[in-house]
Amino acid sequence: MIDSKGKLLRPAYFYLFSRLGHANQDMHKEIVAAAASTEVLHLATLIHDDIIDESDMRRGIETIQSKHGKDVAVYTGDLLLSVYFDLLADATDSVEIIKLNTLSMKRVLMGEINQMTNVYNTDVTYENYLKSIKGKTAQLFELSCYEGAYFGQCNPDIIEKSRSIGQNIGIAFQMIDDILDYTQTPEILSKPILNDVKQGIYTLPIILGIESNKEKFLPLLKKGENLSDSDLATLVSLLNDNDCIKRAQVIAKKYIDEALLSIESLPSHPEKDTLYSLTKKLLIREF
Amino acid sequence: MIDSKGKLLRPAYFYLFSRLGHANQDMHKEIVAAAASTEVLHLATLIHDDIIDESDMRRGIETIQSKHGKDVAVYTGDLLLSVYFDLLADATDSVEIIKLNTLSMKRVLMGEINQMTNVYNTDVTYENYLKSIKGKTAQLFELSCYEGAYFGQCNPDIIEKSRSIGQNIGIAFQMIDDILDYTQTPEILSKPILNDVKQGIYTLPIILGIESNKEKFLPLLKKGENLSDSDLATLVSLLNDNDCIKRAQVIAKKYIDEALLSIESLPSHPEKDTLYSLTKKLLIREF
Repeated sequence: MIDSKGKLLRPAYFYLFSRLGHANQDMHKEIVAAAASTEVLHLATLIHDDIIDESDMRRGIETIQSKHGKDVAVYTGDLLLSVYFDLLADATDSVEIIKLNTLSMKRVLMGEINQMTNVYNTDVTYENYLKSIKGKTAQLFELSCYEGAYFGQCNPDIIEKSRSIGQNIGIAFQMIDDILDYTQTPEILSKPILNDVKQGIYTLPIILGIESNKEKFLPLLKKGENLSDSDLATLVSLLNDNDCIKRAQVIAKKYIDEALLSIESLPSHPEKDTLYSLTKKLLIREF
Repeated sequence: MIDSKGKLLRPAYFYLFSRLGHANQDMHKEIVAAAASTEVLHLATLIHDDIIDESDMRRGIETIQSKHGKDVAVYTGDLLLSVYFDLLADATDSVEIIKLNTLSMKRVLMGEINQMTNVYNTDVTYENYLKSIKGKTAQLFELSCYEGAYFGQCNPDIIEKSRSIGQNIGIAFQMIDDILDYTQTPEILSKPILNDVKQGIYTLPIILGIESNKEKFLPLLKKGENLSDSDLATLVSLLNDNDCIKRAQVIAKKYIDEALLSIESLPSHPEKDTLYSLTKKLLIREF
């Protein structure tokens, strides 16, 4: 999975933030270990998510769950969680950082659990969706940006801003992921599409659809896991007819814009420009 | 699960060892947190094991996997792993202890994975069985005894002996568990019996059976998951006819005796006697 098509965004944000600080070359090993830990935690949660979703494709390759069975997938995820804390212990003597990570991990899982408790709930609200994605996705972006700033020994002003920048990026990133699920092909995404709705996970486009046109959306959604390919095609048309995709993009853009505004306010630095342009590109990404 | 019929043996061994040292009352909070962490890691692995075994009963109550589904079980196990490291961070400033725990966790999982790679392998050896149980079970007993001695500020001699005492206890504990699976009722064990052999996990009694009477054992084992209740009854008779249970008990006793010998060699202390009698009782436990 490490060799596959992952974007490595979390360690990238970690590293970019770390460059904005005063840390010297001596800290390189610790910075790399801590940056890697963010991706390892991400990988562990992906592998465990795939058990739950029974997903067969991820990052363009067969999932561990599908190739080696759920038993191997459970233990591989657990093993990566031990590697995650091992890398952290390589990176720092600070128990506060360890505790920050256990808290983040807890929030990621609570986001997943919140999402799970709302499956097939057509009354799920935008606020509830936001709660799920703040946990399951944004939490790790927030941690990555913050830890980058912390390990890079940034000024307090940057350290403080890093959290909300990370959170806004993470929220937007997940919204865009959820939009792409309805607009992109599985080939380009390197993973199956339209799985969420069949499994009763109603993401931003669907929530906007229910809000604006209950009569059309509910009868379809009530079919639950029995949604046929033709039902799914109807659903996608409905989303477009009701401007749900466009409206979801506007909301995602709001979060990206907020992140960009904060990034702009950071002190001038070459890596600041990379941070800015990388974040801007997230909005127009195709996979 | 915390409220159910767990024996809490790992924190018990931790606590007994901690009493043999010089730590004063100030350390009480840290000792309790670290002792609890051993049980929390154990619980996390049990919950994940039950996903793999599709077990429906554990400690006399329905498993999380059976009651709430595998999705909840995956995340509950993960959540407990974050609690595990959280408790450790409450207990210590030592990165070495964190790293010792990630290493132990890794060895526990490698033991599970080793066991898994040998399912339905009728050529599995005693050495290989020992490798699996040293990881999946003995590792955590070793860690619990060692951490107890460490946090209790024991003399170096006790700290050094704690590891091998824990390992011998853990090996014997698992062997006895595997024996009880063939000699006890599900009611008394508070969990299903004879599941291992159906799932192709050949433990000590079966390995001794294959070694001594291949012709009788192999045709039965070859039925794999299709072993009927009457096949299982035949298997249990075969184990008794070939003295496999008795021979397994002799081997388990060897490890308990080794642990008892080391415990005897510890300096005199009231808790040393408790340690001794608790360990002795493990051999004759009925559940």
